[in-house]
Amino acid sequence: MSFRTNRRVEFRDTDAAGIVHFSAFFPWMESAEHEMLRSMGIKIIPDSHDAADEVTWPRVSVSCDYHQAARFEDWLTVDVTVGKVGRSSVQYEIAFFRESDAGEMLPIATGKIVVVCCKLQSGGRLQKAEIPADIRAKLESI
Amino acid sequence: MSFRTNRRVEFRDTDAAGIVHFSAFFPWMESAEHEMLRSMGIKIIPDSHDAADEVTWPRVSVSCDYHQAARFEDWLTVDVTVGKVGRSSVQYEIAFFRESDAGEMLPIATGKIVVVCCKLQSGGRLQKAEIPADIRAKLESI
Amino acid sequence: MSFRTNRRVEFRDTDAAGIVHFSAFFPWMESAEHEMLRSMGIKIIPDSHDAADEVTWPRVSVSCDYHQAARFEDWLTVDVTVGKVGRSSVQYEIAFFRESDAGEMLPIATGKIVVVCCKLQSGGRLQKAEIPADIRAKLESI
Amino acid sequence: MSFRTNRRVEFRDTDAAGIVHFSAFFPWMESAEHEMLRSMGIKIIPDSHDAADEVTWPRVSVSCDYHQAARFEDWLTVDVTVGKVGRSSVQYEIAFFRESDAGEMLPIATGKIVVVCCKLQSGGRLQKAEIPADIRAKLESI
Repeated sequence: MSFRTNRRVEFRDTDAAGIVHFSAFFPWMESAEHEMLRSMGIKIIPDSHDAADEVTWPRVSVSCDYHQAARFEDWLTVDVTVGKVGRSSVQYEIAFFRESDAGEMLPIATGKIVVVCCKLQSGGRLQKAEIPADIRAKLESI
Repeated sequence: MSFRTNRRVEFRDTDAAGIVHFSAFFPWMESAEHEMLRSMGIKIIPDSHDAADEVTWPRVSVSCDYHQAARFEDWLTVDVTVGKVGRSSVQYEIAFFRESDAGEMLPIATGKIVVVCCKLQSGGRLQKAEIPADIRAKLESI
Repeated sequence: MSFRTNRRVEFRDTDAAGIVHFSAFFPWMESAEHEMLRSMGIKIIPDSHDAADEVTWPRVSVSCDYHQAARFEDWLTVDVTVGKVGRSSVQYEIAFFRESDAGEMLPIATGKIVVVCCKLQSGGRLQKAEIPADIRAKLESI
Repeated sequence: MSFRTNRRVEFRDTDAAGIVHFSAFFPWMESAEHEMLRSMGIKIIPDSHDAADEVTWPRVSVSCDYHQAARFEDWLTVDVTVGKVGRSSVQYEIAFFRESDAGEMLPIATGKIVVVCCKLQSGGRLQKAEIPADIRAKLESI
Protein backbone atom coordinates (compact mmCIF):
# COMPACT_ATOMS: atom_id res chain seq x y z
CA MET A 1 0.00 0.00 0.00
CA SER A 2 1.48 3.31 -1.00
CA PHE A 3 0.80 6.85 -2.15
CA ARG A 4 1.60 7.72 -5.76
CA THR A 5 2.33 11.08 -7.33
CA ASN A 6 4.15 12.37 -10.41
CA ARG A 7 6.79 14.96 -11.10
CA ARG A 8 8.32 16.59 -14.20
CA VAL A 9 12.10 17.03 -14.12
CA GLU A 10 12.83 20.76 -14.37
CA PHE A 11 15.94 22.32 -15.88
CA ARG A 12 17.25 23.53 -12.50
CA ASP A 13 17.29 19.90 -11.31
CA THR A 14 20.00 19.02 -13.83
CA ASP A 15 23.77 19.48 -13.69
CA ALA A 16 26.68 19.78 -16.12
CA ALA A 17 26.82 15.98 -16.48
CA GLY A 18 23.53 16.40 -18.37
CA ILE A 19 21.48 14.46 -15.83
CA VAL A 20 19.51 15.19 -12.65
CA HIS A 21 21.86 16.10 -9.81
CA PHE A 22 21.81 13.39 -7.15
CA SER A 23 20.84 15.88 -4.44
CA ALA A 24 17.62 16.88 -6.23
CA PHE A 25 15.96 13.63 -5.21
CA PHE A 26 15.88 14.68 -1.55
CA PRO A 27 13.59 17.70 -1.87
CA TRP A 28 11.50 15.54 -4.24
CA MET A 29 11.21 12.83 -1.56
CA GLU A 30 10.12 15.38 1.01
CA SER A 31 7.59 16.93 -1.37
CA ALA A 32 6.06 13.53 -2.10
CA GLU A 33 5.88 12.82 1.65
CA HIS A 34 4.23 16.20 2.21
CA GLU A 35 1.77 15.64 -0.60
CA MET A 36 0.80 12.32 0.99
CA LEU A 37 0.39 13.87 4.46
CA ARG A 38 -1.68 16.71 2.97
CA SER A 39 -3.92 14.16 1.23
CA MET A 40 -4.50 12.50 4.63
CA GLY A 41 -5.29 15.77 6.39
CA ILE A 42 -2.12 15.74 8.49
CA LYS A 43 -0.69 19.21 9.12
CA ILE A 44 2.98 19.42 8.12
CA ILE A 45 4.30 22.41 10.05
CA PRO A 46 2.78 24.24 13.04
CA ASP A 47 0.75 27.36 12.30
CA SER A 48 2.99 29.47 14.47
CA HIS A 49 6.02 29.39 16.71
CA ASP A 50 3.67 29.42 19.72
CA ALA A 51 1.68 26.37 18.70
CA ALA A 52 2.76 24.19 21.61
CA ASP A 53 0.33 21.38 20.88
CA GLU A 54 1.27 20.92 17.28
CA VAL A 55 3.93 18.57 16.03
CA THR A 56 6.54 18.80 13.33
CA TRP A 57 8.80 16.18 11.72
CA PRO A 58 12.53 16.85 11.47
CA ARG A 59 14.54 14.33 9.50
CA VAL A 60 17.15 12.26 11.40
CA SER A 61 18.41 9.98 8.67
CA VAL A 62 18.03 9.84 4.88
CA SER A 63 19.52 7.83 2.05
CA CYS A 64 19.18 7.26 -1.66
CA ASP A 65 20.33 4.59 -4.13
CA TYR A 66 20.58 5.54 -7.78
CA HIS A 67 19.69 2.98 -10.45
CA GLN A 68 19.55 4.99 -13.66
CA ALA A 69 19.92 8.65 -14.59
CA ALA A 70 16.90 10.90 -14.85
CA ARG A 71 17.00 13.70 -17.42
CA PHE A 72 15.41 17.06 -18.16
CA GLU A 73 11.68 16.78 -18.93
CA ASP A 74 11.38 13.18 -17.72
CA TRP A 75 7.94 12.53 -16.25
CA LEU A 76 8.58 10.57 -13.07
CA THR A 77 6.31 8.38 -11.02
CA VAL A 78 6.95 8.68 -7.28
CA ASP A 79 5.69 6.05 -4.83
CA VAL A 80 5.75 6.75 -1.08
CA THR A 81 5.42 3.80 1.27
CA VAL A 82 5.00 4.24 5.02
CA GLY A 83 7.37 1.79 6.64
CA LYS A 84 7.92 1.28 10.36
CA VAL A 85 5.88 3.60 12.59
CA GLY A 86 7.58 3.68 15.99
CA ARG A 87 6.71 5.52 19.20
CA SER A 88 8.12 8.80 17.81
CA SER A 89 9.63 7.93 14.45
CA VAL A 90 8.30 7.15 11.01
CA GLN A 91 10.22 5.63 8.12
CA TYR A 92 9.19 6.45 4.56
CA GLU A 93 10.42 4.68 1.46
CA ILE A 94 10.24 6.60 -1.78
CA ALA A 95 10.72 4.98 -5.18
CA PHE A 96 11.18 6.93 -8.42
CA PHE A 97 10.31 5.38 -11.79
CA ARG A 98 10.24 6.47 -15.41
CA GLU A 99 7.91 4.81 -17.90
CA SER A 100 9.75 3.50 -20.96
CA ASP A 101 8.35 3.85 -24.49
CA ALA A 102 7.31 0.21 -24.15
CA GLY A 103 5.31 0.98 -21.01
CA GLU A 104 7.72 -0.57 -18.54
CA MET A 105 8.33 1.18 -15.20
CA LEU A 106 12.11 1.70 -15.08
CA PRO A 107 13.55 2.20 -11.60
CA ILE A 108 15.44 5.49 -11.30
CA ALA A 109 16.17 5.85 -7.60
CA THR A 110 15.01 4.52 -4.23
CA GLY A 111 15.25 6.56 -1.05
CA LYS A 112 14.49 6.39 2.65
CA ILE A 113 13.63 9.14 5.09
CA VAL A 114 13.39 8.66 8.86
CA VAL A 115 11.54 11.46 10.64
CA VAL A 116 10.92 12.06 14.33
CA CYS A 117 7.76 13.56 15.76
CA CYS A 118 8.63 16.70 17.75
CA LYS A 119 6.83 19.43 19.63
CA LEU A 120 7.98 23.03 19.48
CA GLN A 121 9.32 24.38 22.77
CA SER A 122 9.59 28.07 23.56
CA GLY A 123 12.60 29.55 21.81
CA GLY A 124 12.04 27.39 18.76
CA ARG A 125 13.67 24.28 20.25
CA LEU A 126 12.26 20.88 19.37
CA GLN A 127 11.35 18.12 21.85
CA LYS A 128 10.82 14.53 20.75
CA ALA A 129 7.19 13.51 21.34
CA GLU A 130 4.96 10.49 20.98
CA ILE A 131 3.12 10.42 17.65
CA PRO A 132 -0.47 11.61 18.34
CA ALA A 133 -3.01 8.77 18.11
CA ASP A 134 -5.02 10.29 15.25
CA ILE A 135 -1.90 10.77 13.10
CA ARG A 136 -0.66 7.26 13.93
CA ALA A 137 -4.00 5.84 12.83
CA LYS A 138 -3.80 7.66 9.52
CA LEU A 139 -0.19 6.64 8.87
CA GLU A 140 -0.96 3.00 9.66
CA SER A 141 -4.00 2.98 7.39
CA ILE A 142 -2.05 3.57 4.19
CA MET B 1 34.36 51.94 -3.27
CA SER B 2 33.17 48.41 -2.92
CA PHE B 3 33.50 45.16 -1.02
CA ARG B 4 35.26 42.28 -2.76
CA THR B 5 34.97 38.54 -2.13
CA ASN B 6 35.55 35.36 -4.12
CA ARG B 7 33.60 32.22 -4.83
CA ARG B 8 34.32 28.84 -6.42
CA VAL B 9 31.61 27.53 -8.79
CA GLU B 10 30.32 24.26 -7.35
CA PHE B 11 28.89 21.37 -9.35
CA ARG B 12 25.34 21.91 -8.04
CA ASP B 13 25.44 25.43 -9.53
CA THR B 14 25.61 24.03 -13.06
CA ASP B 15 22.87 22.75 -15.36
CA ALA B 16 22.54 20.42 -18.34
CA ALA B 17 23.71 23.19 -20.69
CA GLY B 18 27.10 22.68 -19.04
CA ILE B 19 27.22 26.16 -17.51
CA VAL B 20 26.13 27.84 -14.28
CA HIS B 21 22.33 28.07 -14.11
CA PHE B 22 21.23 31.71 -14.35
CA SER B 23 19.33 31.48 -11.05
CA ALA B 24 22.46 30.54 -9.08
CA PHE B 25 23.73 34.12 -9.26
CA PHE B 26 20.95 35.32 -6.94
CA PRO B 27 21.92 33.35 -3.82
CA TRP B 28 25.51 34.31 -4.66
CA MET B 29 24.57 38.01 -4.71
CA GLU B 30 22.84 37.69 -1.37
CA SER B 31 25.76 35.82 0.16
CA ALA B 32 28.18 38.52 -0.98
CA GLU B 33 25.88 41.19 0.47
CA HIS B 34 25.70 39.26 3.75
CA GLU B 35 29.46 38.80 3.85
CA MET B 36 29.88 42.56 3.43
CA LEU B 37 27.31 43.34 6.16
CA ARG B 38 29.00 40.83 8.49
CA SER B 39 32.37 42.47 7.83
CA MET B 40 30.83 45.81 8.88
CA GLY B 41 29.26 44.39 12.05
CA ILE B 42 25.69 44.75 10.78
CA LYS B 43 23.37 41.99 12.01
CA ILE B 44 21.58 40.30 9.11
CA ILE B 45 18.57 38.64 10.71
CA PRO B 46 17.00 39.26 14.14
CA ASP B 47 18.03 36.91 16.94
CA SER B 48 14.46 35.83 17.54
CA HIS B 49 10.90 36.32 16.41
CA ASP B 50 10.35 38.57 19.42
CA ALA B 51 13.21 40.95 18.66
CA ALA B 52 11.02 44.01 18.04
CA ASP B 53 13.89 46.46 17.87
CA GLU B 54 15.92 44.62 15.32
CA VAL B 55 15.65 45.08 11.60
CA THR B 56 15.73 42.72 8.67
CA TRP B 57 16.05 43.31 4.92
CA PRO B 58 13.54 41.67 2.58
CA ARG B 59 14.25 42.05 -1.15
CA VAL B 60 11.72 44.04 -3.20
CA SER B 61 13.39 44.01 -6.60
CA VAL B 62 16.31 42.14 -8.14
CA SER B 63 17.82 41.77 -11.59
CA CYS B 64 20.78 40.26 -13.38
CA ASP B 65 22.41 40.72 -16.78
CA TYR B 66 24.55 37.88 -18.09
CA HIS B 67 27.68 38.68 -20.12
CA GLN B 68 29.48 35.37 -20.40
CA ALA B 69 28.91 31.84 -19.08
CA ALA B 70 30.52 30.71 -15.84
CA ARG B 71 31.51 27.06 -15.55
CA PHE B 72 32.20 24.40 -12.93
CA GLU B 73 35.31 25.18 -10.84
CA ASP B 74 35.61 28.77 -12.06
CA TRP B 75 37.04 31.01 -9.36
CA LEU B 76 34.91 34.14 -9.42
CA THR B 77 35.60 37.61 -8.09
CA VAL B 78 32.49 39.26 -6.65
CA ASP B 79 32.31 43.03 -6.11
CA VAL B 80 29.48 44.51 -4.03
CA THR B 81 28.84 48.24 -4.35
CA VAL B 82 26.40 50.07 -2.10
CA GLY B 83 24.32 52.27 -4.36
CA LYS B 84 21.52 54.59 -3.32
CA VAL B 85 20.71 54.51 0.42
CA GLY B 86 17.16 55.87 0.81
CA ARG B 87 15.03 56.41 3.92
CA SER B 88 14.19 52.70 4.11
CA SER B 89 15.76 51.13 1.04
CA VAL B 90 19.26 50.20 -0.05
CA GLN B 91 20.40 49.30 -3.54
CA TYR B 92 23.35 46.98 -4.01
CA GLU B 93 25.14 46.34 -7.27
CA ILE B 94 27.02 43.08 -7.55
CA ALA B 95 29.48 42.35 -10.35
CA PHE B 96 30.92 38.91 -11.09
CA PHE B 97 34.24 38.51 -12.90
CA ARG B 98 36.53 35.68 -13.90
CA GLU B 99 40.23 36.22 -14.35
CA SER B 100 41.49 35.08 -17.77
CA ASP B 101 44.78 33.24 -18.22
CA ALA B 102 46.21 36.58 -19.35
CA GLY B 103 45.16 38.20 -16.08
CA GLU B 104 42.23 40.17 -17.48
CA MET B 105 39.05 40.46 -15.40
CA LEU B 106 36.31 39.14 -17.69
CA PRO B 107 32.78 40.28 -16.81
CA ILE B 108 30.46 37.33 -16.17
CA ALA B 109 27.29 38.90 -14.79
CA THR B 110 26.08 42.11 -13.15
CA GLY B 111 23.17 42.20 -10.74
CA LYS B 112 21.15 44.56 -8.61
CA ILE B 113 19.31 43.97 -5.36
CA VAL B 114 16.96 46.47 -3.74
CA VAL B 115 16.22 45.73 -0.09
CA VAL B 116 13.89 47.47 2.36
CA CYS B 117 14.60 47.90 6.05
CA CYS B 118 11.80 46.27 8.08
CA LYS B 119 10.97 45.61 11.71
CA LEU B 120 9.36 42.38 12.83
CA GLN B 121 5.81 42.76 14.11
CA SER B 122 4.10 40.21 16.33
CA GLY B 123 2.95 37.27 14.25
CA GLY B 124 6.03 37.47 12.07
CA ARG B 125 4.72 40.31 9.87
CA LEU B 126 7.17 42.89 8.60
CA GLN B 127 6.75 46.68 8.85
CA LYS B 128 8.82 49.06 6.73
CA ALA B 129 11.11 51.14 8.96
CA GLU B 130 13.66 53.92 8.70
CA ILE B 131 17.21 52.64 8.41
CA PRO B 132 18.81 53.01 11.89
CA ALA B 133 21.42 55.78 11.98
CA ASP B 134 24.35 53.54 12.91
CA ILE B 135 23.65 51.16 10.03
CA ARG B 136 23.17 54.05 7.60
CA ALA B 137 26.54 55.47 8.63
CA LYS B 138 28.23 52.15 7.97
CA LEU B 139 26.55 51.67 4.61
CA GLU B 140 27.46 55.18 3.50
CA SER B 141 31.07 54.75 4.55
CA ILE B 142 31.81 52.00 2.05
CA MET C 1 -3.04 36.51 -24.30
CA SER C 2 -0.96 34.38 -22.01
CA PHE C 3 -0.21 30.84 -20.85
CA ARG C 4 -1.36 29.88 -17.35
CA THR C 5 -0.06 27.15 -15.06
CA ASN C 6 -0.02 26.46 -11.32
CA ARG C 7 2.59 25.54 -8.78
CA ARG C 8 2.58 24.40 -5.13
CA VAL C 9 5.22 26.02 -2.89
CA GLU C 10 7.48 23.25 -1.59
CA PHE C 11 9.37 23.29 1.68
CA ARG C 12 12.79 23.57 -0.01
CA ASP C 13 11.61 26.84 -1.60
CA THR C 14 11.39 28.52 1.82
CA ASP C 15 14.08 30.13 3.97
CA ALA C 16 14.64 30.95 7.65
CA ALA C 17 12.52 34.11 7.32
CA GLY C 18 9.58 31.72 6.98
CA ILE C 19 8.79 32.71 3.40
CA VAL C 20 9.77 31.68 -0.11
CA HIS C 21 13.37 32.67 -0.84
CA PHE C 22 13.46 35.39 -3.49
CA SER C 23 15.73 33.32 -5.72
CA ALA C 24 13.20 30.49 -5.99
CA PHE C 25 11.05 32.53 -8.36
CA PHE C 26 13.68 32.29 -11.12
CA PRO C 27 13.62 28.52 -11.62
CA TRP C 28 9.82 28.81 -11.36
CA MET C 29 9.76 31.38 -14.17
CA GLU C 30 11.90 29.19 -16.36
CA SER C 31 9.75 26.13 -15.65
CA ALA C 32 6.60 28.03 -16.60
CA GLU C 33 8.28 29.23 -19.80
CA HIS C 34 9.34 25.65 -20.58
CA GLU C 35 5.86 24.33 -19.88
CA MET C 36 4.46 26.87 -22.32
CA LEU C 37 7.03 26.01 -25.01
CA ARG C 38 6.33 22.31 -24.52
CA SER C 39 2.59 22.94 -24.90
CA MET C 40 3.33 24.66 -28.24
CA GLY C 41 5.57 21.84 -29.48
CA ILE C 42 8.76 23.90 -29.31
CA LYS C 43 11.82 21.87 -28.37
CA ILE C 44 13.66 23.41 -25.39
CA ILE C 45 17.15 21.97 -25.59
CA PRO C 46 18.87 20.21 -28.51
CA ASP C 47 18.82 16.42 -28.54
CA SER C 48 22.58 16.22 -28.56
CA HIS C 49 25.74 18.29 -28.61
CA ASP C 50 26.04 17.56 -32.34
CA ALA C 51 22.60 18.90 -33.27
CA ALA C 52 23.86 21.81 -35.32
CA ASP C 53 20.45 22.76 -36.69
CA GLU C 54 18.68 22.99 -33.38
CA VAL C 55 18.39 26.10 -31.28
CA THR C 56 18.58 26.76 -27.57
CA TRP C 57 17.70 29.81 -25.49
CA PRO C 58 20.25 31.13 -22.98
CA ARG C 59 19.06 33.93 -20.73
CA VAL C 60 20.71 37.34 -21.12
CA SER C 61 18.73 39.41 -18.64
CA VAL C 62 16.23 38.62 -15.88
CA SER C 63 14.47 40.55 -13.13
CA CYS C 64 11.81 40.15 -10.48
CA ASP C 65 9.71 42.53 -8.37
CA TYR C 66 8.25 41.17 -5.15
CA HIS C 67 4.82 42.37 -4.02
CA GLN C 68 3.89 40.03 -1.18
CA ALA C 69 5.51 37.01 0.46
CA ALA C 70 4.63 33.49 -0.67
CA ARG C 71 4.66 30.74 1.93
CA PHE C 72 4.98 26.97 2.23
CA GLU C 73 2.05 25.11 0.62
CA ASP C 74 0.70 28.19 -1.18
CA TRP C 75 -0.95 27.23 -4.46
CA LEU C 76 0.28 29.77 -6.97
CA THR C 77 -1.10 30.80 -10.33
CA VAL C 78 1.62 31.57 -12.88
CA ASP C 79 0.87 33.57 -16.04
CA VAL C 80 3.46 33.70 -18.83
CA THR C 81 3.08 36.42 -21.45
CA VAL C 82 5.21 36.55 -24.58
CA GLY C 83 6.37 40.13 -24.94
CA LYS C 84 8.59 41.53 -27.66
CA VAL C 85 9.83 38.94 -30.18
CA GLY C 86 12.93 40.38 -31.88
CA ARG C 87 15.17 39.01 -34.60
CA SER C 88 16.96 36.75 -32.10
CA SER C 89 15.52 37.62 -28.69
CA VAL C 90 12.27 36.95 -26.86
CA GLN C 91 11.01 38.67 -23.74
CA TYR C 92 8.72 36.80 -21.37
CA GLU C 93 6.78 38.35 -18.52
CA ILE C 94 5.79 36.04 -15.71
CA ALA C 95 3.27 37.00 -13.04
CA PHE C 96 2.70 35.03 -9.83
CA PHE C 97 -0.61 35.24 -7.95
CA ARG C 98 -2.18 33.62 -4.92
CA GLU C 99 -5.93 33.32 -4.60
CA SER C 100 -7.24 34.82 -1.35
CA ASP C 101 -9.96 33.14 0.70
CA ALA C 102 -12.34 35.70 -0.84
CA GLY C 103 -11.38 34.58 -4.33
CA GLU C 104 -9.23 37.59 -5.19
CA MET C 105 -6.01 37.08 -7.17
CA LEU C 106 -3.30 38.63 -4.98
CA PRO C 107 -0.11 39.61 -6.82
CA ILE C 108 2.96 37.90 -5.34
CA ALA C 109 5.74 38.67 -7.80
CA THR C 110 6.28 39.78 -11.39
CA GLY C 111 9.33 38.82 -13.39
CA LYS C 112 10.90 39.24 -16.80
CA ILE C 113 13.22 36.96 -18.73
CA VAL C 114 15.00 37.92 -21.93
CA VAL C 115 16.34 34.96 -23.90
CA VAL C 116 18.40 34.84 -27.08
CA CYS C 117 18.04 32.20 -29.76
CA CYS C 118 21.37 30.42 -30.26
CA LYS C 119 22.75 27.55 -32.29
CA LEU C 120 25.27 25.12 -30.86
CA GLN C 121 28.72 25.30 -32.42
CA SER C 122 31.27 22.52 -32.21
CA GLY C 123 32.91 22.51 -28.79
CA GLY C 124 29.66 23.45 -27.11
CA ARG C 125 29.94 27.17 -27.91
CA LEU C 126 26.76 29.11 -28.66
CA GLN C 127 26.21 31.40 -31.66
CA LYS C 128 23.36 33.92 -31.78
CA ALA C 129 20.89 32.99 -34.52
CA GLU C 130 17.71 34.28 -36.11
CA ILE C 131 14.59 32.77 -34.55
CA PRO C 132 13.37 30.03 -36.95
CA ALA C 133 10.16 31.02 -38.76
CA ASP C 134 8.04 28.18 -37.37
CA ILE C 135 8.98 29.02 -33.78
CA ARG C 136 8.42 32.73 -34.38
CA ALA C 137 4.94 31.98 -35.71
CA LYS C 138 4.09 29.95 -32.61
CA LEU C 139 5.44 32.56 -30.20
CA GLU C 140 3.54 35.35 -31.96
CA SER C 141 0.31 33.38 -31.92
CA ILE C 142 0.00 33.32 -28.12
CA MET D 1 43.68 10.53 7.82
CA SER D 2 41.27 12.91 6.25
CA PHE D 3 40.89 16.15 4.31
CA ARG D 4 39.48 19.14 6.17
CA THR D 5 37.71 22.21 4.82
CA ASN D 6 35.27 24.81 6.14
CA ARG D 7 32.00 26.26 4.98
CA ARG D 8 29.77 29.17 6.02
CA VAL D 9 26.01 28.41 6.12
CA GLU D 10 24.32 30.73 3.62
CA PHE D 11 20.78 32.01 3.83
CA ARG D 12 19.60 29.96 0.82
CA ASP D 13 20.63 26.81 2.73
CA THR D 14 17.96 27.40 5.39
CA ASP D 15 14.24 26.62 5.38
CA ALA D 16 11.09 27.84 7.13
CA ALA D 17 11.90 25.71 10.18
CA GLY D 18 14.73 28.20 10.76
CA ILE D 19 17.50 25.65 10.23
CA VAL D 20 19.55 24.27 7.36
CA HIS D 21 17.40 22.13 5.07
CA PHE D 22 18.44 18.50 5.29
CA SER D 23 19.04 18.31 1.53
CA ALA D 24 21.67 21.08 1.60
CA PHE D 25 24.23 18.73 3.13
CA PHE D 26 24.45 16.70 -0.08
CA PRO D 27 25.84 19.43 -2.36
CA TRP D 28 28.12 20.35 0.57
CA MET D 29 29.43 16.75 0.74
CA GLU D 30 30.10 16.74 -2.97
CA SER D 31 31.85 20.11 -2.84
CA ALA D 32 34.11 18.91 -0.03
CA GLU D 33 34.90 15.74 -2.01
CA HIS D 34 35.68 17.88 -5.08
CA GLU D 35 37.86 20.24 -3.07
CA MET D 36 39.82 17.25 -1.79
CA LEU D 37 40.22 15.75 -5.29
CA ARG D 38 41.32 19.15 -6.63
CA SER D 39 43.90 19.42 -3.86
CA MET D 40 45.28 16.03 -4.96
CA GLY D 41 45.40 17.00 -8.63
CA ILE D 42 42.61 14.61 -9.64
CA LYS D 43 40.44 15.94 -12.47
CA ILE D 44 36.74 15.86 -11.54
CA ILE D 45 34.93 15.98 -14.85
CA PRO D 46 36.27 15.32 -18.37
CA ASP D 47 37.33 18.33 -20.42
CA SER D 48 34.86 17.50 -23.16
CA HIS D 49 32.25 15.02 -24.24
CA ASP D 50 34.82 13.45 -26.55
CA ALA D 51 37.41 12.77 -23.87
CA ALA D 52 37.26 9.00 -24.08
CA ASP D 53 40.23 8.39 -21.82
CA GLU D 54 39.04 10.50 -18.94
CA VAL D 55 36.96 9.27 -16.06
CA THR D 56 34.06 10.73 -14.12
CA TRP D 57 32.42 9.70 -10.86
CA PRO D 58 28.63 9.35 -10.76
CA ARG D 59 27.12 8.68 -7.33
CA VAL D 60 25.39 5.35 -6.79
CA SER D 61 24.43 5.59 -3.13
CA VAL D 62 24.40 8.39 -0.57
CA SER D 63 23.15 8.83 2.99
CA CYS D 64 23.20 11.31 5.85
CA ASP D 65 22.49 11.15 9.58
CA TYR D 66 21.59 14.39 11.33
CA HIS D 67 22.79 14.97 14.90
CA GLN D 68 22.04 18.63 15.55
CA ALA D 69 20.61 21.50 13.52
CA ALA D 70 22.91 23.89 11.68
CA ARG D 71 21.80 27.50 11.34
CA PHE D 72 22.36 30.56 9.17
CA GLU D 73 25.93 31.90 9.45
CA ASP D 74 27.27 28.84 11.27
CA TRP D 75 30.91 28.23 10.36
CA LEU D 76 31.18 24.50 9.77
CA THR D 77 34.16 22.21 9.73
CA VAL D 78 33.91 19.47 7.11
CA ASP D 79 36.08 16.35 7.26
CA VAL D 80 36.28 14.03 4.25
CA THR D 81 37.63 10.53 4.82
CA VAL D 82 38.36 8.15 1.97
CA GLY D 83 36.89 4.80 2.96
CA LYS D 84 36.94 1.60 0.93
CA VAL D 85 38.55 1.94 -2.52
CA GLY D 86 37.28 -0.96 -4.64
CA ARG D 87 38.02 -1.94 -8.22
CA SER D 88 35.67 0.77 -9.56
CA SER D 89 34.04 2.32 -6.50
CA VAL D 90 35.14 4.70 -3.78
CA GLN D 91 33.35 5.39 -0.51
CA TYR D 92 33.72 8.79 1.13
CA GLU D 93 32.63 9.64 4.66
CA ILE D 94 31.95 13.29 5.35
CA ALA D 95 31.50 14.65 8.88
CA PHE D 96 30.17 18.14 9.65
CA PHE D 97 31.01 19.87 12.94
CA ARG D 98 30.39 23.24 14.52
CA GLU D 99 32.73 24.64 17.12
CA SER D 100 30.96 25.62 20.35
CA ASP D 101 31.79 28.79 22.28
CA ALA D 102 33.77 26.54 24.62
CA GLY D 103 35.85 25.22 21.73
CA GLU D 104 34.23 21.81 21.52
CA MET D 105 33.59 20.28 18.08
CA LEU D 106 29.85 19.53 18.06
CA PRO D 107 28.74 16.90 15.54
CA ILE D 108 26.12 18.27 13.12
CA ALA D 109 25.76 15.55 10.48
CA THR D 110 27.61 12.56 9.07
CA GLY D 111 27.21 11.42 5.48
CA LYS D 112 28.42 8.81 3.06
CA ILE D 113 28.84 8.94 -0.69
CA VAL D 114 29.62 5.93 -2.88
CA VAL D 115 30.86 6.84 -6.34
CA VAL D 116 31.74 4.65 -9.32
CA CYS D 117 34.53 5.35 -11.74
CA CYS D 118 33.11 5.64 -15.27
CA LYS D 119 34.38 6.43 -18.75
CA LEU D 120 32.34 8.47 -21.17
CA GLN D 121 31.07 6.56 -24.20
CA SER D 122 29.95 8.23 -27.41
CA GLY D 123 26.49 9.70 -27.00
CA GLY D 124 27.21 10.72 -23.42
CA ARG D 125 26.63 7.26 -21.93
CA LEU D 126 28.75 6.11 -19.01
CA GLN D 127 30.61 2.81 -18.76
CA LYS D 128 31.93 1.49 -15.43
CA ALA D 129 35.74 1.38 -15.49
CA GLU D 130 38.63 0.31 -13.29
CA ILE D 131 40.03 3.19 -11.24
CA PRO D 132 43.24 4.35 -13.00
CA ALA D 133 46.36 3.41 -11.05
CA ASP D 134 47.57 6.98 -10.49
CA ILE D 135 44.21 8.05 -9.05
CA ARG D 136 44.03 4.93 -6.87
CA ALA D 137 47.49 5.70 -5.48
CA LYS D 138 46.41 9.24 -4.58
CA LEU D 139 43.15 8.14 -2.97
CA GLU D 140 44.92 5.47 -0.93
CA SER D 141 47.58 7.91 0.24
CA ILE D 142 45.18 10.13 2.17
